[in-house]
Amino acid sequence: MSALSEGLTQIVIPLASLVGIGFALLQWFLVSRVKLLSQDSSNGYKQKLIESDEEEEGINNLEISIKCTEIQHAISVGATSFLFTEYKYLGIFMCVFGAIIFLFLGSVKGFSTKSEPCTYSQGNTCKPALANAFFSTIAFLLGALTSVLSGYLGMKIATYANARTTLEARKGVGKAFITAFRSGAVMGFLLAANGLLVLYVSINLFKLYYGDDWEGLYESITGYGLGGSSMALFGRVGGGIYTKAADVGADLVGKVERNIPEDDPRNPAVIADNVGDNVGDIAGMGSDLFGSYAESSCAALFVASISSFGISHEFTAMSYPLLISSMGIVVCLITTLFATDLFEIKKVSDIEPSLKRQLLISTVLMTAGIAVVSFFALPSEFTLFNFGTEKEVKNWHLFFCVAIGLWAGLIIGYTTEYYTSNAYSPVQDVADACRTGAATNVIFGLALGYKSVIIPIFAIAIAIYVSFSLAAMYGIAVAALGMLSTIATGLAIDAYGPISDNAGGIAEMAGMSHKIRERTDALDAAGNTTAAIGKGFAIGSAALVSLALFGAYVSRAGIKTVDVLTPKAFIGLIVGAMLPYWFSAMTMKSVGSAALKMVEEVRRQFNTIPGLMEGRVKPDYANCVKISTDASLREMIPPGALVMLTPLIVGTLFGVETLAGVLAGALVSGVQVAISASNTGGAWDNAKKYIEAGVSEHAKSLGPKGSECHKAAVIGDTIGDPLKDTSGPSLNILIKLMAVESLVFAPFFAAHGGFLFKFI
Amino acid sequence: MSALSEGLTQIVIPLASLVGIGFALLQWFLVSRVKLLSQDSSNGYKQKLIESDEEEEGINNLEISIKCTEIQHAISVGATSFLFTEYKYLGIFMCVFGAIIFLFLGSVKGFSTKSEPCTYSQGNTCKPALANAFFSTIAFLLGALTSVLSGYLGMKIATYANARTTLEARKGVGKAFITAFRSGAVMGFLLAANGLLVLYVSINLFKLYYGDDWEGLYESITGYGLGGSSMALFGRVGGGIYTKAADVGADLVGKVERNIPEDDPRNPAVIADNVGDNVGDIAGMGSDLFGSYAESSCAALFVASISSFGISHEFTAMSYPLLISSMGIVVCLITTLFATDLFEIKKVSDIEPSLKRQLLISTVLMTAGIAVVSFFALPSEFTLFNFGTEKEVKNWHLFFCVAIGLWAGLIIGYTTEYYTSNAYSPVQDVADACRTGAATNVIFGLALGYKSVIIPIFAIAIAIYVSFSLAAMYGIAVAALGMLSTIATGLAIDAYGPISDNAGGIAEMAGMSHKIRERTDALDAAGNTTAAIGKGFAIGSAALVSLALFGAYVSRAGIKTVDVLTPKAFIGLIVGAMLPYWFSAMTMKSVGSAALKMVEEVRRQFNTIPGLMEGRVKPDYANCVKISTDASLREMIPPGALVMLTPLIVGTLFGVETLAGVLAGALVSGVQVAISASNTGGAWDNAKKYIEAGVSEHAKSLGPKGSECHKAAVIGDTIGDPLKDTSGPSLNILIKLMAVESLVFAPFFAAHGGFLFKFI
Repeated sequence: MSALSEGLTQIVIPLASLVGIGFALLQWFLVSRVKLLSQDSSNGYKQKLIESDEEEEGINNLEISIKCTEIQHAISVGATSFLFTEYKYLGIFMCVFGAIIFLFLGSVKGFSTKSEPCTYSQGNTCKPALANAFFSTIAFLLGALTSVLSGYLGMKIATYANARTTLEARKGVGKAFITAFRSGAVMGFLLAANGLLVLYVSINLFKLYYGDDWEGLYESITGYGLGGSSMALFGRVGGGIYTKAADVGADLVGKVERNIPEDDPRNPAVIADNVGDNVGDIAGMGSDLFGSYAESSCAALFVASISSFGISHEFTAMSYPLLISSMGIVVCLITTLFATDLFEIKKVSDIEPSLKRQLLISTVLMTAGIAVVSFFALPSEFTLFNFGTEKEVKNWHLFFCVAIGLWAGLIIGYTTEYYTSNAYSPVQDVADACRTGAATNVIFGLALGYKSVIIPIFAIAIAIYVSFSLAAMYGIAVAALGMLSTIATGLAIDAYGPISDNAGGIAEMAGMSHKIRERTDALDAAGNTTAAIGKGFAIGSAALVSLALFGAYVSRAGIKTVDVLTPKAFIGLIVGAMLPYWFSAMTMKSVGSAALKMVEEVRRQFNTIPGLMEGRVKPDYANCVKISTDASLREMIPPGALVMLTPLIVGTLFGVETLAGVLAGALVSGVQVAISASNTGGAWDNAKKYIEAGVSEHAKSLGPKGSECHKAAVIGDTIGDPLKDTSGPSLNILIKLMAVESLVFAPFFAAHGGFLFKFI
Repeated sequence: MSALSEGLTQIVIPLASLVGIGFALLQWFLVSRVKLLSQDSSNGYKQKLIESDEEEEGINNLEISIKCTEIQHAISVGATSFLFTEYKYLGIFMCVFGAIIFLFLGSVKGFSTKSEPCTYSQGNTCKPALANAFFSTIAFLLGALTSVLSGYLGMKIATYANARTTLEARKGVGKAFITAFRSGAVMGFLLAANGLLVLYVSINLFKLYYGDDWEGLYESITGYGLGGSSMALFGRVGGGIYTKAADVGADLVGKVERNIPEDDPRNPAVIADNVGDNVGDIAGMGSDLFGSYAESSCAALFVASISSFGISHEFTAMSYPLLISSMGIVVCLITTLFATDLFEIKKVSDIEPSLKRQLLISTVLMTAGIAVVSFFALPSEFTLFNFGTEKEVKNWHLFFCVAIGLWAGLIIGYTTEYYTSNAYSPVQDVADACRTGAATNVIFGLALGYKSVIIPIFAIAIAIYVSFSLAAMYGIAVAALGMLSTIATGLAIDAYGPISDNAGGIAEMAGMSHKIRERTDALDAAGNTTAAIGKGFAIGSAALVSLALFGAYVSRAGIKTVDVLTPKAFIGLIVGAMLPYWFSAMTMKSVGSAALKMVEEVRRQFNTIPGLMEGRVKPDYANCVKISTDASLREMIPPGALVMLTPLIVGTLFGVETLAGVLAGALVSGVQVAISASNTGGAWDNAKKYIEAGVSEHAKSLGPKGSECHKAAVIGDTIGDPLKDTSGPSLNILIKLMAVESLVFAPFFAAHGGFLFKFI
């Protein structure tokens, strides 16, 4: 038996969630103390801006504050309106897909309302398949709503914080850093705590109906992961297309043709570009990581429910995944204090180490945390289910599974940093290749991305081998959870990036001094690297989560082996490995086409609006926002359909073995494409920043802005945009979502699937 | 029993080979009737050049003929010297690796010279493992030598034909086409016939020792495939780096910086560039396809030897793969006549259809040929080995297996053409994206490559499913052989491309008129597409061959299932899927670095040799040839080591299951990377040619040469060079070679492998 009693477990989990939410609100309050001018104070922006001693430059320059406020307002309105339009589509999707889930799963036993004998817990009676269909649908809707909420809240705090970061930058880089970082933390903690709380509450509510039928209960709960991930798909793809269409379009005309700086207010696409950061990098990333978190929890819970915890109804041991997440919230809370209170950022060069330190601190503390949870929550020995066989496991085995996931995440994060930060030789080599033009820059950048795959894949492979050997598929699921256990910190440093990017944009648009822009640029450069690290985590965890879901799917579909020597599985494998390419082709072409439309509009405005280039007249920002919105909503449908329909079509027509092949193929191929695309893009971006900043002798010899080398670097950066922010990160979701969807629909495929082969 | 007697089989196969060789020599003779000036006729180039009526322009312009002869001589000398230097390295490699094969395989039974009971043919005695080790080594050396010979002969005829094609172009496009095509046919037929003959002779010689021990005989013969493929690895990688370092280096300085045309004789890298076409695209491609041919024959023979043919010693049925190849030679011979004698090329627009017609004619005729062979060579019903179980198969099942491979090849070829020819919308869209610069060109090009994967993968998947369902792994092996059965025609139209490319280069360098250059450009543009088709065939057949080898490996290693749900196999799968990226990173970076060196040298010559830019002084071609030679020989070692060592290390340390995972992962991931890289590169190349040619209104609006659009297109073309000619095609060999190496070493891994896991 577990040392922790069921009653205490029922207190600890919600308590940790509430502490997380409280901490997030506290951070929000602290950010809100940086005052903007109120939009409503129509009688002339009279009040004093910030209660500080006026030693810093321009603190009380009213005009600049007004401008910042206006710009922030425009970005916030654009982002909110995009998300609401997107959510309308998603609402329709949720209803339709919810109905599909209900119908497919209900049909497994012909919509019978009779109770059935349980599959695993022999001798007991379980609830009818129709109930599972109903509760899976409810869980799906809850997951979808929580995902939407996570994205929306993240976007809100980000658009709330960006101008505040700009204004704080006048007081120094440290103050600006803290504002941006706290805002990121708001998002991180809200997301982690909300995700945990909703899952916890759902389980307890579902239990009111299910009682002792834990098989059905946790089978239904997997719908939560599906809901989270399917929203994330559209958030990532739609947001990714939005942000990159605007970014590429703005750059191609502004920087390349008109030779005006990035974020120049004369550029009509500049607001759309900044909106994009919030809807793509913030809301999209938030939904993505929430999805991973929900899925790995569901995968672990499902596997546990058909093992000894579930069969002997040990609630505390069953809740091990949730307890790990609870511990994660506490650990991340302490970690955050290191950045905001215990250390102070005094100069630009402190920023990146401070962010990297966050990763290390949270990992070290969490390792201890995992040990505590494993010791108190788990019986010292128990039985796990392993594809038809049983496996004896000890509690310290599970400690190693979770810890190796956690540390593999750190290795992936640091490797990503090495390949994408311009402090190291890989990016510097890429920058150097710009000497001979854009072509060599691209060749070296692609090679860098390919190479950056090696270490993460070995880290993932070792984590898989160890955790699987120790605790079968449950080990993989908790390893994924281990990687995500510090999600609050991971998201905080990840969201920090786009907030700083926006802050820089606002500084430029408001016409603030060069000094301020330099500070925000330094924040932004560190943010580029942390964004790449965040993507590394996202894909690493996605790989583990997908494998765990894959294992759960295989268990639920009743397959004993997935043998690549059978033609059914092999053709699945090779076609599955092709899907990431098909998907990337769609998303990249979407970005390309949307960017071309944006280019035409920006050119049209420059050509037809007199006085725009001279800065006398404002451009029509709204039209560019509309182009990005329309393009992304229209273009997200085909790739979304590819991902959502593939498991349904393959499972129905070709059956569970071929689908297992497809999942394995998409996983092993997609993870490579995703890592290389993200890192190639990140490296090009930072190679360009390296040339622009001109810190070293080498960098100076390549620059300055506007040199031939710099132009070549800008081309690389533009190519990298859709790779790193659209197609690459969306692939995480492709592999996870197909796996969780297969898991949810597994009973249907097992009962009715594969009829094409049956006919042949 | 087979309708064809053993005696007749023993006559038919060598006869077909000799007919193929005779036909090749006839074509060579016809090409040689185009007379160049003899280098040795020192007393002043007196003789009349071509015995034609002098109605065409410049036919008797002695100066041009002298120049052409000189240039051809320089190219031939460069190519020969590179190949000889390369062969020196390969000779060392052959000796070392031959020794490794002997030692590893000999150690399986501790170098015992005692006969053993057979594994499959129960109750009989087989030759000792030491004999198999010895004969495998001999077969390896024979395969390696045949591969080297194939590459060398191809290069010889290509450098013999290029200037002759240029000179014939003065008489019209039809004459030039026939010269180039006949030369391609020389290579195609020599290679197909030699490959068949050496294999046939080896089998018969080995039989003198093995007698009735066919298990050991055909096990040893697999060394032939390994030898062919390992030479192809270095040929492809070394040749690929050579040709692209020279090409990229020449373009970056010549076209981009100095604004001089392609192949301008003032460019110091121009000879190296033309040499590269011959050592990379001709010798490399020849070795590659020979490797595929040898491997698929060996895989089929091996599987057959442990099935009923082998056990009941039916020589004719056993020789089915060789009979298919014999029929292929006859079919291709007839097909060639359609291009050279039955139809005449009258205008430029006839060229591409004529080449495409070759594919279709050979496929249709071969389908009938397969039916004939299947009917006469096979018993109407027989038993195949299928991973421990037995499978009853009928002769018409095998007809379908071979035919579906053949037709899948045609589909892959035509799909490749659609995505890489500028006659269709995909390439035109890429060209159109050049309007907004190089970045959108690259984004669209990458998306095109990703998209072009879809149809070939479905074609391969269907071929696999059908052939596996009908005849298990033997079905896959003969499907691969079906795809390669028209190899003589495939190679003819493939080799035609670089010969035309060279012919154009020689025309430019010799200062021939614009009209001549236009004709050779038209030949070349068609050649670009056929080169892409050839690569499509190469990768499609590589996928099938690898799977067949994989199956043979699994049989030989005694594995019953490769279950991705076991951690050993899964980590193999994910690491295997990573290898193509690692390999591509190496090769692309190699091309990049070598190109940078070339750029420096070309720049140096332009800057320090007075009068070079004005054309008064000749550049130092030899130095550029040397740079390419040195770079390629040095840089081919690390990727070569990655491919050759991976199976040895994985098999020895992690054992046969993990190695099976690695092979499957590398196969399903590599085939995607290879297809997308080849097609992206081909599309960029033809998008550039589309803008340059300016045939349609749309194309004219993008051009002319030197416009901003054209510059963007040139950047894309340069990026595509290493993708389509180095990393993409080399991946074929990565996946095939790892599979055949695993097959050859399987007894060793099964006996001694996996000791890392044993220790844990």
